[in-house]
Amino acid sequence: MYSISEPQTLNSSSMKITDFKSIVKNYEIIFFDAYGVLKNYNGLIDGIGKTFKYLKEEGIDYYILTNDASRGPERLAQVYHNFGLREITPDKIISSGMLAREFLQLKVANGTVAYLGKKHSEEYLHELGLNALSVSDLDLKNIDDINVLVFMDDEGFDWNHDINKIVNLLRKKNIPAVVANTDWFYPVSNNDIAIAIGGIANMVEAITNRRFIRFGKPDSNMFIFAYEHCAQGKKIDKRKILMVGDTLYTDIIGGNKFGIDTALVLTGTTLPHKAKKRINSTGIIPDYICHSAAIEL
Amino acid sequence: MYSISEPQTLNSSSMKITDFKSIVKNYEIIFFDAYGVLKNYNGLIDGIGKTFKYLKEEGIDYYILTNDASRGPERLAQVYHNFGLREITPDKIISSGMLAREFLQLKVANGTVAYLGKKHSEEYLHELGLNALSVSDLDLKNIDDINVLVFMDDEGFDWNHDINKIVNLLRKKNIPAVVANTDWFYPVSNNDIAIAIGGIANMVEAITNRRFIRFGKPDSNMFIFAYEHCAQGKKIDKRKILMVGDTLYTDIIGGNKFGIDTALVLTGTTLPHKAKKRINSTGIIPDYICHSAAIEL
Amino acid sequence: MYSISEPQTLNSSSMKITDFKSIVKNYEIIFFDAYGVLKNYNGLIDGIGKTFKYLKEEGIDYYILTNDASRGPERLAQVYHNFGLREITPDKIISSGMLAREFLQLKVANGTVAYLGKKHSEEYLHELGLNALSVSDLDLKNIDDINVLVFMDDEGFDWNHDINKIVNLLRKKNIPAVVANTDWFYPVSNNDIAIAIGGIANMVEAITNRRFIRFGKPDSNMFIFAYEHCAQGKKIDKRKILMVGDTLYTDIIGGNKFGIDTALVLTGTTLPHKAKKRINSTGIIPDYICHSAAIEL
Amino acid sequence: MYSISEPQTLNSSSMKITDFKSIVKNYEIIFFDAYGVLKNYNGLIDGIGKTFKYLKEEGIDYYILTNDASRGPERLAQVYHNFGLREITPDKIISSGMLAREFLQLKVANGTVAYLGKKHSEEYLHELGLNALSVSDLDLKNIDDINVLVFMDDEGFDWNHDINKIVNLLRKKNIPAVVANTDWFYPVSNNDIAIAIGGIANMVEAITNRRFIRFGKPDSNMFIFAYEHCAQGKKIDKRKILMVGDTLYTDIIGGNKFGIDTALVLTGTTLPHKAKKRINSTGIIPDYICHSAAIEL
Repeated sequence: MYSISEPQTLNSSSMKITDFKSIVKNYEIIFFDAYGVLKNYNGLIDGIGKTFKYLKEEGIDYYILTNDASRGPERLAQVYHNFGLREITPDKIISSGMLAREFLQLKVANGTVAYLGKKHSEEYLHELGLNALSVSDLDLKNIDDINVLVFMDDEGFDWNHDINKIVNLLRKKNIPAVVANTDWFYPVSNNDIAIAIGGIANMVEAITNRRFIRFGKPDSNMFIFAYEHCAQGKKIDKRKILMVGDTLYTDIIGGNKFGIDTALVLTGTTLPHKAKKRINSTGIIPDYICHSAAIEL
Repeated sequence: MYSISEPQTLNSSSMKITDFKSIVKNYEIIFFDAYGVLKNYNGLIDGIGKTFKYLKEEGIDYYILTNDASRGPERLAQVYHNFGLREITPDKIISSGMLAREFLQLKVANGTVAYLGKKHSEEYLHELGLNALSVSDLDLKNIDDINVLVFMDDEGFDWNHDINKIVNLLRKKNIPAVVANTDWFYPVSNNDIAIAIGGIANMVEAITNRRFIRFGKPDSNMFIFAYEHCAQGKKIDKRKILMVGDTLYTDIIGGNKFGIDTALVLTGTTLPHKAKKRINSTGIIPDYICHSAAIEL
Repeated sequence: MYSISEPQTLNSSSMKITDFKSIVKNYEIIFFDAYGVLKNYNGLIDGIGKTFKYLKEEGIDYYILTNDASRGPERLAQVYHNFGLREITPDKIISSGMLAREFLQLKVANGTVAYLGKKHSEEYLHELGLNALSVSDLDLKNIDDINVLVFMDDEGFDWNHDINKIVNLLRKKNIPAVVANTDWFYPVSNNDIAIAIGGIANMVEAITNRRFIRFGKPDSNMFIFAYEHCAQGKKIDKRKILMVGDTLYTDIIGGNKFGIDTALVLTGTTLPHKAKKRINSTGIIPDYICHSAAIEL
Repeated sequence: MYSISEPQTLNSSSMKITDFKSIVKNYEIIFFDAYGVLKNYNGLIDGIGKTFKYLKEEGIDYYILTNDASRGPERLAQVYHNFGLREITPDKIISSGMLAREFLQLKVANGTVAYLGKKHSEEYLHELGLNALSVSDLDLKNIDDINVLVFMDDEGFDWNHDINKIVNLLRKKNIPAVVANTDWFYPVSNNDIAIAIGGIANMVEAITNRRFIRFGKPDSNMFIFAYEHCAQGKKIDKRKILMVGDTLYTDIIGGNKFGIDTALVLTGTTLPHKAKKRINSTGIIPDYICHSAAIEL
């Protein structure tokens, strides 16, 4: 809650750091961002394994909310499994790709889905009974069957050739374009980043002057999808859900807008010495700031 | 559904118009936009009264989704009542102001809400146990108690003086800013429009370089709020909900993204002779196009 | 010049401060920004009087480039005269308002100029042989004679009423709209700012979806106007001109793009402890950084 | 001139088409856009050869203003020569690439220019005494000598690999980034377009949050460069210059802002049946509309 007693004001000379364990026990469900909170390019964030042991013991439920459409939940969970973190099972994963899939299921009756992404991105399209066609294999002279375009992943196609191909596809046929990951870029090492499919989609949208349909944080649809997934028909008090993230522009503003409490951790994109300045300059105010989502048992 | 059999393509020479009555019976719940669908500056759209009689007889539920925070649901429903349309009761109204109120309830524990709007905009803030203070009455030397700023309505304050006041309020104190109506403008007569509070909020956000929290169509939060309001804990198949609107950029893209079917009516901002061109140039494709939401009984 | 020997790189641990006097003597003409360089809300910047004495003695020419259309050059020069700085005469003033006037002279043959601004803003429109009409006095039913709209100043009209009036003027008649000051805001005291006419113009442009014509820094037209004004037909080597400003986004990037050298001073919007960070995060790199444009004689 | 006697108003029922020959004789200098005015993907626009014969006979000077940095003026002129149009010699070409070169000459003293583009794009960088390095050959571990980045052409590099490389280059070293062609896309056939380097630069600028320096129409710097090029120190009355273009957003608004008269031709991007609507919806108003820049002798 934004509280008058402890405001993060422009003039406040200190920024209060809270211990993650001391706050997490006040909630029934925790939503975690993945990259920068649970893992980074090196592997798991130090001590994060104990956090999930603690949550299990205390009966606190948890979900991973991730802007990712490159893989289905099984493969996304497998990554944690490979790191030795077995508490993150496929049913705990909420990805922007799953939202895009639900959209296709509800709104695209038949025909072929053209997609930008790696071949195995199409795995979970098949379950929908839709044909999937990589843009790499698309022939602009044969587009009668194409009913929707999906931006899934930045890999698996030739940017020089295939980005121009989709610009012309959208000019030739009026079909909805779906962006299954809103991120503009992602880290690939301690120092380097790569442009994400959401960044490419922005360029194509500007050039074609269309309105694309986007899935992923900070949009409310990601949070409501997670909420429905965990509530399973029960009514859950939003005051009992905490969003934990490292990025003000996605995790924190998205959680705030959805009406749940938010905790910023300093293990990812928001560096410890810049957190206060960033909060003040953006007006995006987390309810808590914690060094890390790790818990000492 | 986007269907391969009847594509609204760039090259299609015709645009199919569907009779509203013939489609409405396929749904259990209808979401209506208000302005341009049910009413305009002159009063009710011709024949709209019969539509609600028909829906009641057929047991089809309905809700009005409106970007409006100038009044509470009682006053919004009263407008229809005054026109003789008694089927639209306060419980049928879903307004962006109600979403903003829920946000305040969940995220602002105490203190004072500063707002831009008319005095009676603050009516439903009082129910929350929060103090409300019109920006007209705000003194920048006395802002310790202000915990949030809400953009509610374009009337009720002095633009010359008070817009600059809130720019400086946001520079002096880091508080969340909530936009309770995303619209940029609204019609005031057959020919003239007026800037809405969402348009003013955009200017203030750009100048202060903050990120505001917005409520209203086309954002998913408006649709999920309506969905939860009508579902009351039951599970409703989204395929059984139809969104009816006159504006591609709010009603139609918002409904599409939420995964429900959409019908564009031509009684408001999208003029009949421009509908096809607009659909093709924006890539926002309704499932149906109808002359009007009126039903001949 | 961007020099490989002294790069302002992201990783450089120091930021070199240069003495203004030591660099100014290498140039034949100095362009000064006004607010934050020569004066602020308190009056003249300390020691700035000596700078102009020095420039006169050394035979270095100088001009003031200011985003201001609220007054003609005589009134703008009068402000410095009142502070005791008599070297800044009307012929030394280059304002964005003068560019707008040249545009009207070249492109508007006859009819009436509707303007937003104070009555005395219209003084120098009369010299053009054009009628001028304050938007305050404009009647939307009588617009046959209106041939252009000019955004001149944020004062002199009723924002609540007159901003909506111009939105509808632009919808009723297709006339060019000219923004005679690109600034979004300006300081009114040590702590407070006010929205400038450029900020209001942005809102109106977005709502009407038109393309306005803008005059002022950082646009090249401001620099070429100053160049032509001082060159008077002679060819001047751009390498002999220095732009001195306090704002990266207008003075420095504008000067760089025009191909002249640039000096950032720290007496205005770019605070000394933030200069390095701002330069690195924006990629807008001045050739020199000086504490102030004041010169010790 | 915008004239009250023949306004292109929203309510006017007709759009006046003027014969190109009848207006061209009123000017001393004609600025032509290239693509869509003089040539298209098929070759020369019908009858355009006679226009240049006429201009020569009448002693009317002419220049080609083109957003192109892929080649120097010799190669650009060669294209017309190959079509049999010998009046367009290298000295008649004003390209955005020439502006970028002037910027480098004035502002980059030494070191290496990293560029995106084909090998022969670098031809005219060598004349400046600067080293040029294709981004294809750039090693991020060896960037000490890189002093500026130039976006020249969309061909000649691997988009998948090299666009990410420049994103990280700009994160590692704070150097100016120059966009030598502002266009977002260009036509490659009657139906298809390709993304231009200006479109790619927009994506990189958004992702790195930098401010790039752009050269090309509609920016005033293109027009003033052409003006200085043809004036050669003489004073030319701007009323004696006409800009002829096919695109409202670049040629026409740029010419209007520069204060010269403008003629829209309908042989390129602005289709005859859409011209009136486009002019009315954008508020970009040419002084004349002509079917073509071709002249019947």
